[in-house]
Amino acid sequence: MFEEIDQYVRRWITVTPADLPVLHSLLEYREVPKKTLLLQEGEICRIEAFIQKGCIRNYYIDEHGSEVTLQFAIEDWWVSDIASFQDQKPSRMFIETLEDCTLWCLNPQSKDRLLKDAPCFERMFRIMVQRNLARLQERLFQTITTTAVEKYLDFIERYPTIPQRVAQHYIASYLGFSPEFLSKVRTKLRDSRG
Amino acid sequence: MFEEIDQYVRRWITVTPADLPVLHSLLEYREVPKKTLLLQEGEICRIEAFIQKGCIRNYYIDEHGSEVTLQFAIEDWWVSDIASFQDQKPSRMFIETLEDCTLWCLNPQSKDRLLKDAPCFERMFRIMVQRNLARLQERLFQTITTTAVEKYLDFIERYPTIPQRVAQHYIASYLGFSPEFLSKVRTKLRDSRG
Repeated sequence: MFEEIDQYVRRWITVTPADLPVLHSLLEYREVPKKTLLLQEGEICRIEAFIQKGCIRNYYIDEHGSEVTLQFAIEDWWVSDIASFQDQKPSRMFIETLEDCTLWCLNPQSKDRLLKDAPCFERMFRIMVQRNLARLQERLFQTITTTAVEKYLDFIERYPTIPQRVAQHYIASYLGFSPEFLSKVRTKLRDSRG
Repeated sequence: MFEEIDQYVRRWITVTPADLPVLHSLLEYREVPKKTLLLQEGEICRIEAFIQKGCIRNYYIDEHGSEVTLQFAIEDWWVSDIASFQDQKPSRMFIETLEDCTLWCLNPQSKDRLLKDAPCFERMFRIMVQRNLARLQERLFQTITTTAVEKYLDFIERYPTIPQRVAQHYIASYLGFSPEFLSKVRTKLRDSRG
């Protein structure tokens, strides 16, 4: 039952036999159907979830009412609005399941408890947040420096399974393209590869 | 000597009497003149530095050769390219002092040692990275959703001392404006305030 998350934990930190049971006792198992909002703008984020199965996105709504996808997350990623979760202040983002998901969830209280009773998990969450930060920095860098075709190629290299899993317009909203423009980029790529 | 950093530590975590001496023994004190590059694109980042005094920026160079400021950091912030530092892989960014700085520095080995000998610092670094991540997410959100005037107003609210401390063109490169455009925004603001 805890196979995937235990494997994830062991990839990043060294645990004693006492640590994993503490984690297990605090995780809440949730099956969430696709197209469910786990968080809406204005709400306080009370979830930090490990994705055992499924695909989720975080997005914003811009001033024209368009969705801007901040991040896709699949198996072995954690999703949350970490600022809202940590400080218990209203979020500006939405978190939505794109597929039926099975999740292991922490709330602010259970995460606090976990870090008190098994402080080794501080390291795991630090590394996880660092990876997130590095990814976002790279994203900002790419937004600035790369062409549309490069952006798309980088996206499919990083997220090879996403194009098969989610609707094209979500990918467009991640890349900052209109759906029509994404379609042109893909055609151009196909043509250039003969 | 360690007053500022000890105060910073105590703001975020609870330490035992043994923990701070471990930190002190591992920190390297550096006085760095203004306009010094602490990291250049292509180098591996070997520094994670607490700013005791001074102002530093991280920036990228885009494909037109223009500098894009990712972040300003002043007293009580840590600077690093955390992805390059953690994985010891080449960086894409530059880190430059904008003022004469006094820094407390860790390198990958001393940080490892610190976290082994005083694991309570995992929590401090986790919270620090979370704050960085939250800031960058907000920045991405603002890039998308706000007007130029709002961006500038938000900037001076967040970094009230920066406009007095650094040259205008750095602020322009942070906001994604040309220096001329930033100047127009400031004039507009001044006029609107009568």
